[in-house]
Parts: sequence; C-alpha cells; structure tokens
Amino acid sequence: MSIITRQANIKELADIVGASIHGDPEVVISGIATLELAGQSELSFFTNRKYHKYLLITKAAVVILHPDDVDTCPTNAILSEDPYLTYAKIATWLTKSDIKQSQIASSAVIADNATIGENTSVGANVVIGNGSKIGHNVSLHAGCVIADNVKIGSGTVLYPNVSIYSNVVIGEKTIIHSGAVIGSDGFGIANENGQWFKVPQLGAVIIGDNVEVGANTTIDRGAIEDTVIENGVKLDNLIQIAHNVRIGENTAIAGCVGIAGSSTIGKHCAIGGGSGILGHLSIADHVHITATSLVTKSIRESGVYSSGTPLQENSQWHKNFIRFKQLDTMARRLSKLEKKL
Amino acid sequence: MSIITRQANIKELADIVGASIHGDPEVVISGIATLELAGQSELSFFTNRKYHKYLLITKAAVVILHPDDVDTCPTNAILSEDPYLTYAKIATWLTKSDIKQSQIASSAVIADNATIGENTSVGANVVIGNGSKIGHNVSLHAGCVIADNVKIGSGTVLYPNVSIYSNVVIGEKTIIHSGAVIGSDGFGIANENGQWFKVPQLGAVIIGDNVEVGANTTIDRGAIEDTVIENGVKLDNLIQIAHNVRIGENTAIAGCVGIAGSSTIGKHCAIGGGSGILGHLSIADHVHITATSLVTKSIRESGVYSSGTPLQENSQWHKNFIRFKQLDTMARRLSKLEKKL
Amino acid sequence: MSIITRQANIKELADIVGASIHGDPEVVISGIATLELAGQSELSFFTNRKYHKYLLITKAAVVILHPDDVDTCPTNAILSEDPYLTYAKIATWLTKSDIKQSQIASSAVIADNATIGENTSVGANVVIGNGSKIGHNVSLHAGCVIADNVKIGSGTVLYPNVSIYSNVVIGEKTIIHSGAVIGSDGFGIANENGQWFKVPQLGAVIIGDNVEVGANTTIDRGAIEDTVIENGVKLDNLIQIAHNVRIGENTAIAGCVGIAGSSTIGKHCAIGGGSGILGHLSIADHVHITATSLVTKSIRESGVYSSGTPLQENSQWHKNFIRFKQLDTMARRLSKLEKKL
Repeated sequence: MSIITRQANIKELADIVGASIHGDPEVVISGIATLELAGQSELSFFTNRKYHKYLLITKAAVVILHPDDVDTCPTNAILSEDPYLTYAKIATWLTKSDIKQSQIASSAVIADNATIGENTSVGANVVIGNGSKIGHNVSLHAGCVIADNVKIGSGTVLYPNVSIYSNVVIGEKTIIHSGAVIGSDGFGIANENGQWFKVPQLGAVIIGDNVEVGANTTIDRGAIEDTVIENGVKLDNLIQIAHNVRIGENTAIAGCVGIAGSSTIGKHCAIGGGSGILGHLSIADHVHITATSLVTKSIRESGVYSSGTPLQENSQWHKNFIRFKQLDTMARRLSKLEKKL
Repeated sequence: MSIITRQANIKELADIVGASIHGDPEVVISGIATLELAGQSELSFFTNRKYHKYLLITKAAVVILHPDDVDTCPTNAILSEDPYLTYAKIATWLTKSDIKQSQIASSAVIADNATIGENTSVGANVVIGNGSKIGHNVSLHAGCVIADNVKIGSGTVLYPNVSIYSNVVIGEKTIIHSGAVIGSDGFGIANENGQWFKVPQLGAVIIGDNVEVGANTTIDRGAIEDTVIENGVKLDNLIQIAHNVRIGENTAIAGCVGIAGSSTIGKHCAIGGGSGILGHLSIADHVHITATSLVTKSIRESGVYSSGTPLQENSQWHKNFIRFKQLDTMARRLSKLEKKL
Repeated sequence: MSIITRQANIKELADIVGASIHGDPEVVISGIATLELAGQSELSFFTNRKYHKYLLITKAAVVILHPDDVDTCPTNAILSEDPYLTYAKIATWLTKSDIKQSQIASSAVIADNATIGENTSVGANVVIGNGSKIGHNVSLHAGCVIADNVKIGSGTVLYPNVSIYSNVVIGEKTIIHSGAVIGSDGFGIANENGQWFKVPQLGAVIIGDNVEVGANTTIDRGAIEDTVIENGVKLDNLIQIAHNVRIGENTAIAGCVGIAGSSTIGKHCAIGGGSGILGHLSIADHVHITATSLVTKSIRESGVYSSGTPLQENSQWHKNFIRFKQLDTMARRLSKLEKKL
C-alpha cells in the first residue's frame, strides 16, 4: 500500500476529475494499491486486460475503470473514458505534499553572482557557478553541480547528483533525475593522419517546460547551434541524446535509446526502449517506433515502425541465424526456379 | 601482478577449500597473475580452453585447474572440479584487507534523526536524510546521497556518488557501485489531449542481501507496489530496471540490459548483455537469454533463448538486410512453387 | 551563434592552418555558425552533402570548404582538402580561453599525502584519497571523487561528479565527462550451488594520453591484469567497457556500445553506436563496425562489418519477423525443389 497525504471519500475524488460513480459515494479512501493487493479502504484502477482476473476478485474500496467494465467490477467504481489518466489525476491529488520551506544548505557552494529565486531549496553540497540564475520554487537536491551561466526555470526539480554544464537553459516545472548529465561535449572529432582532433562543442542545450529527464540520461551540447528538447518531452533512464538533436513537443522516449547527432524527432512521437536512431535523420510527427528498432533512414509519414527478429529457443534460432547469410542467394535461387517453371 | 595482502604456501591455500595438490606443497605464493604473465611465486588458474596455449608455457608457481588438465600443466597444481570458484575463494582469502576503523567524515551532512550503526564509515560529503537507518559495518563512500527514510542493512557498501531516493530498502552485504541510481521515478505518463500527465510513483525499491548493482545502473521505484531485487541478484553496469520489475534470487544480468515495467524475471536466470525485455512479461526460473536478444513474450520454460542476426562484411550483409523485407513474399512464392510440382 | 574569445580576419584564420583563400582576406570574423544560420561576420564550414542547399544561400562571411565546392559558394572561402579538420583547428583557436588561475576550493577534501601539481584547479567538494598524485594544469571539477593511489597526468580535465576508484592511472591531456565511472569492479562471479560467489577484481584501469571518455560511461577494473584504454581513444557517452578489455590507439566508439570482458579492440577502429561485442574476442586494426551490430566472433581483417535487419512499417515488418523462424526450413524446401528440377 502506498502512503497518501490526504483522505477523501469516493465522491470527492470523482469530483476532482468530474467523473461519475457506480456504487457508494461515501466510502472514505485512505490508500492506493493494485487490484490484486488493495484492501477495503483503498483505491485502485483497471486498464490492462492482462489483469482482468484481479478485477474480478479485488477487495478495493473503489476501482477507476471504463464504463464498459463496470459489470465485472465487484466493488464501487469511478467511471472514466480514460481510467489511467483519471487515476493519475486522483493519485496526484491524494499524494500532494505540503510546500516545503525554502532552505539553502550551509554546505552549498554558490557563486557570489549567481541568483536564487524565492522559495527555492538548495540541498547539501550543491554547487552553483558564476552567473547562473535559478528561478522560484526550484528544488536542487544534494550533490547537484550547476556550472556557469546556467538558467533554471521556476518550479523545476533536480534530484541528487545531477551535472549541468555551462550555458545550459532548463525551462519551468521540469524534472531531472539523479545522475543525468546535461551539456556534456558532443562527440565531435576530426581525423588527422590517424589521430583524432577534438572539434570544439560551442552550442548549448535548451530544455523546455514540463520536460522529464530520466536517471543517468545524457544530453550533449550542440557543436555550433544548440541541442533542443522541446516542451513536454518525457525521457526515461539511460538515454543518449547526441549534439544538435531536436526532440519535438510531447514526444516520449523509453529507456536505453540512443539518438545520434543532428537528428530531428517530431512532436508526439513514441520511441520504444533500446532503439537506435542514426544521425542527420528527420522523423515526422506522430511516429511510433517499437522497442529495440534501428532507424537508418528518415521517416516522412506518421505510423508504427519496427525492426528486429524474433526470440527463439537457441538451437532453433541458430539455424535461422546462420541462414540469414544466405538470404540474398536464396532469393536469387527462388527467382531462377520460378523462371524455369 | 596483483597486490595481495597475505602470503601462504600452496598447501595452506589448498586447505582453504579442501582441495588436493599435484606437486610441491611448500612453495610460498606472493601474488596472483594470469597464466601468460605469472612469475615464479605467483598463483594462476585455468578455466577457458582459449587460453590452453598459455597453460602449456606458464611460469606460475601454481595453477588451479581441473584434474583432467593436470597432465598438460608444467608446474604445481591445485586440483578442483570447479577451478574458477576455487580461484575466487583463494583470491578472496589472499586479498582480504584489515577491517577499517569506523570513521564519520566531518564534511558528511547527516540528518539529526538518521541512525548510523556501529563500525560504519561515512565518507566525505555523504548526505543522509531524515529518518534513514544505516546498519553496522556499512561503508558509504564519498559523495553518496541517501534521501529520507532509507534503510541500508549491515555490511553493505556504496561506492562514491551513488544516489538513493527516499524509502528505498537495501539489504545486508550488498554492493552498489558508483553512479548507480536507486528509486528514481518510474516512467509513468498518461496522455491528455496530446500532452503527458505525470503518474505519481508511490512504491519503493526493495533490494535484498548479497546483491551487487553495477556502475551507473538505474532501478526505478514502483508505481504503486515496489520494485523488488531479490537476494543474491547480480547486476552489471548501465542496466535499466523499470518500475515494478521483480528479479528472482541469484539471477545475473550483464551490462546494458533494459527491463521494461512490471516484468518478472525468475530465479537463477542469466541475461546476456544488451538484451531488452518488454513490459508485463514473465520469465521462468533458469532461463538463459543470450546477448542482445529482444524478449517480446513471456517465457514459460527454462532453456536458452536468442534473437538477432549474424555479423557479416558490410556489402554481403547489406544484400541480406534488403532481402529481409521480402522474406514473407519469398515464403509465399516458395509455397506456390511447391504446389506446382 | 557561438561565442568566440578572439577575433581575426580571414587571412589570419587561414594562416593558422596554412590554407589558401578565395575572396576577400580582410573580413573580420566575430562568430561561428552553421551555413543556414550564419550572419555577415561569421565563419561556417561545408562538409556534409545533405546541407549543400544551405551553402547555396549562406550569408556567412566565410565558409571552409573543399576546393571542388568553391564554385557554388556565394561568399568568401577558406580552401581545404579536409574542411572538417580545418574547421576544428580554426574553431579551437577562436575559442581558446585564457588559462585559469590555479585554485583549490576550500570545500575540497584532500588527503594529507595526496600530491597536487602546479596550476591545477580542484573544484568545490572534490575528494582526493590517500597517495593519489594529480599532475600539473589538471582541472578537477566540482563533486569528483578520486579514491586512493590514483594517478592523473598533466593537462587532464575531469568534469563534475566523475568517480575514479583506487589505483586507476589516467594519462595526460585526457578528458573525462560527468558521471563517468572508472575502475568499478568487473562482473566476475563464480557459481556455487546456485549462488554467486564474488571473484575479487584485483587489476586496475590504465587510460592513456589524449583520451576522451563520455558522460556516464563506465570502465571496469581488470580481474587480475588491467583494463587498458590506449592513447588517443575516443569514447562517447553511456559506453560499458568490461574488465580486461584493451582498446587500441585512436579507436573511436560511439554511444551506448557494450564491450564484454577480455576482448581486444585494435587501433584505428570505429564502432557504431549501440553495438555489442562479446567477450574474449579479438578485433583487428582498422575495423569499422556499423551501428547496433552484434559481434559474436573475432574479426581478423580490417573492413566494414554489420548486422541487423531493416526498419519497416510495423505490419509489413511483422510478416517478415514471423517468417524469420522458418528461414532454415525455407532453405531446405528450396534445395529440395532445386533437386526435383
């Protein structure tokens, strides 16, 4: 069971999102849990068909679900055309914490000409460099290092041990998780007689409002112009964004994705975990790429795209794996046979 | 040559694991080295057939090996049915360091109501939040940030710059390497008219005893219930474990693997490097997945599973790569030909 | 537009690299920009054919380009057989910053018996352990943790929050980006009745001169001998280098690559992003592996190598994906047909 910070009855919760109720509106909710584990005063939700068996036997006080599923629900229900979104809103309300007092840790090292907004918290051992401007209501957790001339907008949160290089700009109400690195040098190298000569990385990183950057994700600064993460983009953990990439508004990218230099991703895209996108490509808006796909060409039309081969028992797979090398030859042999007949 | 902290003769070393000896038991060992590089007072071991050529010419004082290989060993031998395990135990004994004095760095920032066990070391600039409980004989290296209400069991080690979010529980004798992030928010987002609404991540991360978490690995907290890493699990570097994943006892996962939300991995599994496991799947016990495989369905039976295509010289590969798009058509044309004949 | 630290006219810039000029040598350059965005006093360069349309309309004061392209250049030009290298050298000159004063932050925690060279900067909250030796003109940014007995050569830069384990050796003029972890334990585990026994990791990591290590990249220490990164190697972000890997001089590796234990990569190799290289392999010099390839065998000859399958619209892909399981059967059926005819 998850800890909540406020209590309310079912009617009060439904009213937050203007939803209608099936059952008793008066039951008071004191926790949130999954269908399988919820107890008699807890709220749950149903969205994934895989877990329908748990809906049938749930002991939850109330379940947020689609009206179509109310007949199989053994308890009270809050009805929603989009139960997951409704759950997100109600859970946000139930777990809202009091606004913390502004506090600047005595161990923080803040440059004299940095500016810190009102009601902003600066955690233990945070370092803020020359000329950096931190907005209001910002929360900088312990161990974050913010270099020179960085701007961080109001309401933004940096979790512990984030590193922000110089000249990076971060918008409002953005969340950066621990270990993320923003503004490291792009991978720019020029070959001179077999040795690599470093190409100066002179651009910055511009991150918009309402962005979320996952733990240990890295976003390189631009080579000349900036790397840009537009408003509302959501990045999961361990993602690599190379120099001069631009990611369009409200695109969501799952963990372990790598995007090579100067590629542009459209708005409202969804990129599955572990995918790779080569450099200098352009991906249209509303493109969905499934997990661990490799994108080697620009994608001009919205749609769902995939690459990869199926998992098999190893000995079966190995036979097919080997045959892949003969695929072109097989195609030619097949054509030859067809001509013969 | 590696530095060891104690010396012993071959008989004393064999006695640690109850092994028998071939050759002179009296030779004193003063270092550890590979077969290829070992000198006359050094211990080595032989397990990988690829390096048999080095066994034949080794100058090591003693080699830990399987009895079947003693005939081709030019020097003293410690005999073992499992030479790698025997090596691990003897090397652990030879390199054991004295127990350090407990020390709390003056630069550490420890909340008043946090508790620190006996003989625990707290390194420079470590931050420990409200209500956190650190066990006995724990070693927290410099720069680690431990948020509020975290529990860390006795004998556990956190290397520098680890970030632990609030409410995380870590067991005993567990090792967390630098840059690892435990308890960051899961990637929970609900779409509202094209924009993403953050779903509160209310669960925690529960890590068992004798676990090892590699450098820069990330483990997200659960959405409602907890993300669970059971006892004896070994995670390599740069692994992403999403919210509500459960990893069974003694499973080992190599570097760069990503596991999506709510998947359950069995006990005693081995997951090869770079593999991806989609969300809401269930993997049985004793499953072995080879490197860079993609798992898109649950695996109900133990066994070895794989996906992927072979490496080829680029121009040869490209011909087959292109033909992959015709694979279904080729199959249909083949059936047609078969019917004709 | 990027900020530059010095101004010069076109002739002075061309003279840095001994290049010839087409057009007016007297124009003073006060910034660097892309072809598309450059203004009238800015320098740009042209190397990628994709952007030729921008060359045709550029407003840059001068463009560095190949002599073959001078006819389509609407402005002044600096001529070069290798415009990207020439750009790198001129941009480096234009953005060179004054040498900073040596400064040891008062919040740094430096062991009494560590040594710090002349003109070396030690940032806020940096921790340096016993017996470590830091060279001259080194820059250790805030939050870096350097354990015991580490050596760091002159002119090397560590960006914020880097973690260096004990006994690691780093050469001269090397750059380590934020969040990188050098010297964490290799993934050495021996199985004992289903449980994992940790194999001590006794080697170190040796990094040469002029190396660059990307953000959040991890390099494990050797099991017995050392992990070695030779001079001039360039590693991008989020790369995993396992224990006892050796990477040859001037090899460049793009982001998200994983290299398993004891593999040896030759000199002057290029490894594309997201690739995986299995353990105990040997890769020759001058090997180029394209993005997201899996290397399962040693590569004895220089050349370009690839694996993987093409991206397709999902429903088309899925048909081929499924057929992959029949590939071996298809090959046998094809042979049978050929025999019949």
